[in-house]
Amino acid sequence: MTEKTLPLSEEQLREIAEEFGTPFHLYDERGIRANMRRLSRAFAGLPDFKEYFAVKAAPNPYLLRILREEGAGADCSSLPELILAEKTGLRGREIVFTSNDTPAAEYRKAAELGAIINLDDLSHLPFLRETAGLPDLISFRYNPGPLRRGNAIIGQPEAAKYGLTKEQLFTGFEQARVWGVKRFGLHAMIISNELDPDYFLDTARMMFELAGELAGAGVPLEFINLGGGVGIPYRPEEQEVDLEYLGRETARLYAELITGRGLGSPRVAMECGRLMTGPFGWLVATVRHKKDIYKQYAGLDACMADLMRPALYGAYHHITPLGKTGAPYDHLYDVTGSLCENNDKFAIDRPLPLLERGDILVIHDTGAHGHAMGFNYNGKLRSKELLLGLDGRTRQIRRAETTDDYFATLDFTDFTGR
Amino acid sequence: MTEKTLPLSEEQLREIAEEFGTPFHLYDERGIRANMRRLSRAFAGLPDFKEYFAVKAAPNPYLLRILREEGAGADCSSLPELILAEKTGLRGREIVFTSNDTPAAEYRKAAELGAIINLDDLSHLPFLRETAGLPDLISFRYNPGPLRRGNAIIGQPEAAKYGLTKEQLFTGFEQARVWGVKRFGLHAMIISNELDPDYFLDTARMMFELAGELAGAGVPLEFINLGGGVGIPYRPEEQEVDLEYLGRETARLYAELITGRGLGSPRVAMECGRLMTGPFGWLVATVRHKKDIYKQYAGLDACMADLMRPALYGAYHHITPLGKTGAPYDHLYDVTGSLCENNDKFAIDRPLPLLERGDILVIHDTGAHGHAMGFNYNGKLRSKELLLGLDGRTRQIRRAETTDDYFATLDFTDFTGR
Repeated sequence: MTEKTLPLSEEQLREIAEEFGTPFHLYDERGIRANMRRLSRAFAGLPDFKEYFAVKAAPNPYLLRILREEGAGADCSSLPELILAEKTGLRGREIVFTSNDTPAAEYRKAAELGAIINLDDLSHLPFLRETAGLPDLISFRYNPGPLRRGNAIIGQPEAAKYGLTKEQLFTGFEQARVWGVKRFGLHAMIISNELDPDYFLDTARMMFELAGELAGAGVPLEFINLGGGVGIPYRPEEQEVDLEYLGRETARLYAELITGRGLGSPRVAMECGRLMTGPFGWLVATVRHKKDIYKQYAGLDACMADLMRPALYGAYHHITPLGKTGAPYDHLYDVTGSLCENNDKFAIDRPLPLLERGDILVIHDTGAHGHAMGFNYNGKLRSKELLLGLDGRTRQIRRAETTDDYFATLDFTDFTGR
Repeated sequence: MTEKTLPLSEEQLREIAEEFGTPFHLYDERGIRANMRRLSRAFAGLPDFKEYFAVKAAPNPYLLRILREEGAGADCSSLPELILAEKTGLRGREIVFTSNDTPAAEYRKAAELGAIINLDDLSHLPFLRETAGLPDLISFRYNPGPLRRGNAIIGQPEAAKYGLTKEQLFTGFEQARVWGVKRFGLHAMIISNELDPDYFLDTARMMFELAGELAGAGVPLEFINLGGGVGIPYRPEEQEVDLEYLGRETARLYAELITGRGLGSPRVAMECGRLMTGPFGWLVATVRHKKDIYKQYAGLDACMADLMRPALYGAYHHITPLGKTGAPYDHLYDVTGSLCENNDKFAIDRPLPLLERGDILVIHDTGAHGHAMGFNYNGKLRSKELLLGLDGRTRQIRRAETTDDYFATLDFTDFTGR
């Protein structure tokens, strides 16, 4: 069981809702920092362990800065994400650039920033060489294919568009060496939102053993990036990943397979996104309408533009209505948004207390892949983001979209309408 | 069989790609006009038939204007869609406002524009009365619930968040009358992307019979909006809906159930979106990378930010590579974008000719719910939109997004980075 907690008292949340107006995503600085410290401690048994926050989970400079202050770098995979890292103040080896089907401009920007470039395909080695020049450090992304299983979110590795086969890895490193690359890294990312720590230990073992094979082929690794994919317990009945166990056992495998085999001391990295911000974000919305037809509905002032996961993945997000402590959860609601798509539902047949118009609902675990995935379909505008700081004060860290934003790419000079 | 055609010769398309740069959505004015005329002709047997284009399918003022010139109005369901219709020059009864979980501001705007307001719930009648005042014409959306089946996209009517039950309809019209409403309309929209014309005839019969019942209860209808949902043949082996049959048989039902029963001559309306622009839009993209691991990949310069339907619904979109006429379709490709999600694939295991980097691929039937559904996840920027005019010239009708657009809701003054 995971207790679904709020970062503030219900009264304080109500005050913030009053001050800023719903809907908004609220992030908890204290929780993000504490969690990042916990991860660092858990993996302290590994040399120079570094977490590169997967920016796509929550591309907000304030969150990136908080994580950076706690020692995290940034895992970027597009030009805007690279620019965001740059604008936030991250530099050079604080950034890993892991992309796929990558345009030349993105490699150039990554090279300009001195980011660690992680290649997704064998053909990207000559492509990078031609477009941005080869840096002295190159990493490849490994896709073990049928050797490993995936899960529902990311699919099976052999059907994933990412990475190189094992044979290609050896070819790639050899070619890179011929072309003057001196330093090497290895990366894999083959799972998403996985709660079983032993899956990650299997990945660590696979990567550490591969490091041995590569060393045998004359490719000593400077770092091993184990990827991310550590899940979070969206459902109260789920268990969070035991990070201390995961860190301890990863260090044990490292001692056995890396240190124990005389492979030097390659750094170990991870690129968690969801784990870092997911549980420390909440979407706060107000019940705008109730509806009673063939089912009971509570319609919010937020919609799937603010949180796509339930519609896209059928994902569960826990919901806490404010001011209902002790009330029986004896009503079944579909909790909906106003988008003109029937999958615009935050929850289906969810047991909740009797709701009324004006009630404030807090949707949990929206700190990763929440605001970031929003779209403007049906003219919906994405909500603001707020940060609850260490000083207990709340500030806006992203404004809500406006209709002007919505129309920014259109030119109406040709029209007689207002 | 539906032949998948291009609006121009391959050479002309290549020139446009050269001039504007890929990726882009290209819309064909001639096709949109001809199709709208065909719909109007097919339904000419119904009094004052009007199509209200479902704006969410392709919210571009140039497309709205073309459709308006051919007699279409606009079906809007959000404030930005209302503003778009207004900016395009549409006014009053040219606009139907059909929303759900509707905020007060949207009702006020719809009332200001004189739009036909179609209420989604019984509770919206007093809500509208309080927030914007009741207009003299009110329409309700009917949800037949278990009386009708749905399909995969929209789900079953009894699980749909939309509309009123039959009992509520009668209550609603009665209350509206008590509150001084003089004119009445009825609406239903219970299917999406359906290719069986008889489904729509069942809906017409249901609505015309309900009109009779309402007339018996003292509620004479001024219009009957049969909704949209007319599908298009995304797959070459699918048949398009026979609009002439549909229009003719709808008129026959109207003659029998409306005229024949002395119910006056309520106007009949539809609100098709997909049918109006879907087949007349193409996403044109260039093969940026090829990849050969456990599967063969062709990576485009477009991604799911430009077309979400394959990832969101597993939808099929036909793909024509330029310059491959006569080449054997003897390769199986996953056609991907560069977004860091494994479901960023336009096609999976698609038989295609051998592709090379630089090849131009035309993805068919992207004229509805294509550009409109795009998001910015992973820092991806949405593509431009082009219009092939009647004069054979192509012009840009929406610019591509820029990184400045991407960062528009953020304030970096607090950061030391560039």
